[in-house]
Amino acid sequence: MGTAFDDTSRSRQPHRVAIPPAKPFLQTLKSNLKETLFPDDPFRELKKQPSASRKLLLGLQYFIPILEWAPRYTFAFFRADLVAGITIASLAVPQGISYAQLASLPPIVGLYSSFVPPLVYAMLGSSRDVAVGTVAVASLLISTMLGKEVSPVENPKLYFQLAVTATFFAGVFEASLGFLRLGFIVDFLSHATIVGFMSGAATVVCLQQLKGILGLVHFTHETDIVSVMRSIFTQTHQWRWESGILGCCFLFFLLTTRYFSKRKSYFFWINAMAPLTSVVLGSVLVYFTHAEKHGVQVIGNLKKGLNPLSITDLAFGSPHLEGVAVGRSFAQYKNYHIDGNKEMIAFGTMNIVGSLTSCYLTSGPFSRTAVNYNAGCKTAVSNIVMAVAVMFTLLFLTPLFHYTPLVVLSSIIMAAMLGLIDYEAAFHLWKVDKYDFAVCLGAYVGVVFGSVETGLVIAVAISLVRMLLFLARPKTGLLGNIPNSMIYRSMDQYPNAESVPGVMILQIDAPVYFANANYLRERISRWIDEEEDKLKSRGGSSLQFVILDMTSIGNIDTSGISMLEEVKKNTDRKELKLVLANPRSEVIKKLDKSQFIKTIGQEWIYLTVAEAVAACNYMLHTCNPKHVTTAEANGQDSNV
Amino acid sequence: MGTAFDDTSRSRQPHRVAIPPAKPFLQTLKSNLKETLFPDDPFRELKKQPSASRKLLLGLQYFIPILEWAPRYTFAFFRADLVAGITIASLAVPQGISYAQLASLPPIVGLYSSFVPPLVYAMLGSSRDVAVGTVAVASLLISTMLGKEVSPVENPKLYFQLAVTATFFAGVFEASLGFLRLGFIVDFLSHATIVGFMSGAATVVCLQQLKGILGLVHFTHETDIVSVMRSIFTQTHQWRWESGILGCCFLFFLLTTRYFSKRKSYFFWINAMAPLTSVVLGSVLVYFTHAEKHGVQVIGNLKKGLNPLSITDLAFGSPHLEGVAVGRSFAQYKNYHIDGNKEMIAFGTMNIVGSLTSCYLTSGPFSRTAVNYNAGCKTAVSNIVMAVAVMFTLLFLTPLFHYTPLVVLSSIIMAAMLGLIDYEAAFHLWKVDKYDFAVCLGAYVGVVFGSVETGLVIAVAISLVRMLLFLARPKTGLLGNIPNSMIYRSMDQYPNAESVPGVMILQIDAPVYFANANYLRERISRWIDEEEDKLKSRGGSSLQFVILDMTSIGNIDTSGISMLEEVKKNTDRKELKLVLANPRSEVIKKLDKSQFIKTIGQEWIYLTVAEAVAACNYMLHTCNPKHVTTAEANGQDSNV
Repeated sequence: MGTAFDDTSRSRQPHRVAIPPAKPFLQTLKSNLKETLFPDDPFRELKKQPSASRKLLLGLQYFIPILEWAPRYTFAFFRADLVAGITIASLAVPQGISYAQLASLPPIVGLYSSFVPPLVYAMLGSSRDVAVGTVAVASLLISTMLGKEVSPVENPKLYFQLAVTATFFAGVFEASLGFLRLGFIVDFLSHATIVGFMSGAATVVCLQQLKGILGLVHFTHETDIVSVMRSIFTQTHQWRWESGILGCCFLFFLLTTRYFSKRKSYFFWINAMAPLTSVVLGSVLVYFTHAEKHGVQVIGNLKKGLNPLSITDLAFGSPHLEGVAVGRSFAQYKNYHIDGNKEMIAFGTMNIVGSLTSCYLTSGPFSRTAVNYNAGCKTAVSNIVMAVAVMFTLLFLTPLFHYTPLVVLSSIIMAAMLGLIDYEAAFHLWKVDKYDFAVCLGAYVGVVFGSVETGLVIAVAISLVRMLLFLARPKTGLLGNIPNSMIYRSMDQYPNAESVPGVMILQIDAPVYFANANYLRERISRWIDEEEDKLKSRGGSSLQFVILDMTSIGNIDTSGISMLEEVKKNTDRKELKLVLANPRSEVIKKLDKSQFIKTIGQEWIYLTVAEAVAACNYMLHTCNPKHVTTAEANGQDSNV
Repeated sequence: MGTAFDDTSRSRQPHRVAIPPAKPFLQTLKSNLKETLFPDDPFRELKKQPSASRKLLLGLQYFIPILEWAPRYTFAFFRADLVAGITIASLAVPQGISYAQLASLPPIVGLYSSFVPPLVYAMLGSSRDVAVGTVAVASLLISTMLGKEVSPVENPKLYFQLAVTATFFAGVFEASLGFLRLGFIVDFLSHATIVGFMSGAATVVCLQQLKGILGLVHFTHETDIVSVMRSIFTQTHQWRWESGILGCCFLFFLLTTRYFSKRKSYFFWINAMAPLTSVVLGSVLVYFTHAEKHGVQVIGNLKKGLNPLSITDLAFGSPHLEGVAVGRSFAQYKNYHIDGNKEMIAFGTMNIVGSLTSCYLTSGPFSRTAVNYNAGCKTAVSNIVMAVAVMFTLLFLTPLFHYTPLVVLSSIIMAAMLGLIDYEAAFHLWKVDKYDFAVCLGAYVGVVFGSVETGLVIAVAISLVRMLLFLARPKTGLLGNIPNSMIYRSMDQYPNAESVPGVMILQIDAPVYFANANYLRERISRWIDEEEDKLKSRGGSSLQFVILDMTSIGNIDTSGISMLEEVKKNTDRKELKLVLANPRSEVIKKLDKSQFIKTIGQEWIYLTVAEAVAACNYMLHTCNPKHVTTAEANGQDSNV
């Protein structure tokens, strides 16, 4: 009995909303900055260590992960990495040559780019699955952006200089983002953007391959579908049927192998080996049929030897700042799969070193990484194995590519790109979230009909508009009582929720900022008008209380506080009582500082909707207060 | 007994989270668009009307408010409007001349602009307090932006053409925003932005007046403080002391009158009449002392007569598109006090008509509107009275301004501008919301040290970054049980809240979008790690359940769903059970469509945190299920 009495007397008082003590400004700023820039708390392990030398070692291991895993490396690991490395090398050689072709660079540069960068990444990268290499989209970007400045045919030397300069600045930009802890910028590329963008870019790259497959010599420099189609269909008399048939055959071969390897996952190596097989088959075919004399273009001579230094080719003059622009826009999109700032630093360093050794932009392409993963790689040593295999190719095997037909390279690119057009993901987006589908479609259409940058800008713009709209037009809704409970929930979501006579409970579902303060003021007054109209038409009790459920209001600014002040004036004019329920930490602090708590009265701020409703009911019925508070506003009742 | 039993048996089942039925896509789109573009539901009254003619009348009244209030106009209203109209006219004449001077336009244009636009606004405007006229900041903007293209001294005709063209396009732009229901774009200028921007612009305008007060002939075309100060202090030998002393006297007079009128609000007319008094005093002084021959510049001849048509002066050629740019940037900032799309249309029409009748940009300046309000205006008729008074001035009184010294005009502008530097508001911002203060400061520094556009861009950028940061780095926090209740609240805000052994309750305070999905994934896993570390160091019970309180998650996109899927994988790996509490309408719909509900299990989604905790406790203790559910998960228990 004693306990029960205690409990009741204690709970007669509704719970107070706590106003957290004000923290010094600099302390708040520091903790906010830390949360923004160091959300992963990278040095947590470091702080636990007592000795300085141990801290240094851990710090070094953080930046150079090979120091961490190399001591634990075993022969079993090496066996797995060897298999995986050789598998990805067999993919890297034909893809390297093909993508270099796409970037309008000499094929040999593609091989260089599969030699040095993987070695750098093996030291610095923290992912064991990533297989480093050139990427189709980046190659296309290089060729369209640099191609506007310099013709790769007329001035190959300057073009190459621009390409390595672009690579250098892309690396610097990536590494700086990583060091400045700004890696979260890439988070602003949503999954939907990437699906649409990659599909669009893949489509564009496929269209470009029609040049190689149809054996055309002149071709548009534009990448949009309209220009490409016009270029193709105004040259129907130039189509080389030999080349076309060869291309279709190889494409069919490559797509068939992929189809089988997709059905049975342990057949992945068929898929991985198919490009190299195609190159070998194509070269042999040309060599024996002398097809190069019948309209089938071949690679021609490739010089032997490892990467020459290209440090003297870096061109920093202002007319070459174009390269910086390529680098920046490139770094902006390609890192979507990079986990954090550390990976950014690794990729950046890889590209800086690459630009000094005749490589162009490299990254961790999805397709090659997937093959690496399927081949069972254990550590980044698979990248080292690939690099060694490519080195072997560079030193001894380049003459073998003399007869490789360009059409095979086009088929390889096309097959890889068709795999990137992810219509299933797009359909999933449509099913789950129409707005995400619009983002995806925007990116796709932008890339295919405009340019790579257009697509990116459209998608990012649509995504940002969505987020801004969420803030500018927050959802508001009426709450009702779930029968047989003290729970209050949205009457839209729970049709069985019942409204409380004389009381309107309004929930606001976003932080209140300048961007929505005006809207919310109008919307709240509309809710009140509509509710009054409804009650009037029913002839029931009139509206007396407006409870604002502030649970979901995470923050408020001064415009928002002005809005609340105006709502208070508005309700006063209509002789309604404004009641707040569950204002959160940040909000109650600012309401306190701006004296709004005094305006509304501390006694009209409740911890839960249920307590607020109980207090309103008590005022409405002016019945025995003890009865109401014990039954409804006690410690066991509920809220929101 | 029967009732009690019923109640218990019903409440043994926890409440189900409802999944709202899927609405057709087009219906959702339509209601979303309506909420975004017609938040004020302007045609609500219209829909209620049964007859078409009544609808037409109401529609006309909506767009031309004078039709609504004119029939109800009374003589008592007119008396009040007459007084207010004459008061604002006494302000409009000197201010009109001064601001035209600031815009490098002939003084007479300033008077024209106080004649036609107020008449138009009286027909279309829906605010009864707004007094229409030219604005200092817009005048400055005109002179700096157009001054870069054409010199107002060397080519006054072309300069005037550009000014009316700019006005025309500003009008078209405003009206289109109104018709397209895009008025909410101006909501993105926060209160803090406006305080900083207006104070900065006022400072800049004040600095420009030093030219007039010191009687300088040559002056920089730049507006930033550095250029202005350099221009002034390199010409110390050119300073005219006569002019300076006169200016200081008038400034002192104007500031004194304002000081008194601020202390006693019924003295407002002293403040309202002071500028005209200054003009009269100054003119008389110059006339009798022949000060114009001793370095005091005067206005000189003004031609009599009403506005000439300027339709032929509209220049649409591409070199004059600069005007469009002025118009757009002007329309962007000046409408901050315009309530809605309707006001935008009114202001737009006013400027279009104005541009055809030799007027330049007009708006509803804050200071004049305040005087109008204090003078007790009842309807927009006060604007008509003002227009008539200005017409009278234009027809008969212009010769009187021949001897008006320019230094008086400078003093008038300076006094008005000093009133706009709102340091008290800035201090209030600092006190309540440091981030808003940063926005304000950014706008001020940008305007004063850069240009009007720089300030605006800086302020809008800082404001947007704040909102994006809110989304990109949402607050997360642990919830605890408020003693003697079933309420769960943030342990940061309520230090007495107690954590539940073996259960971690995590609250996420923002919609989950691509911009924060990565962050949240990392942050949630860090919360789990930290909680496990803490429990381990205490040696108590280990963590078994992670409850995500989704009350404040207003929406989710596909990236967010992927994030949840990864969190689920992560908790599975650590052998923790993931439980969701109170997913909202939009969220549960998408979780359902994406099959995530199946992944997590419908039985692990609860309506309230309390019910989720009760279920976890039941699993933890594996005691008699009936006991737990009756005591803790029944209909009366509470949540969040």
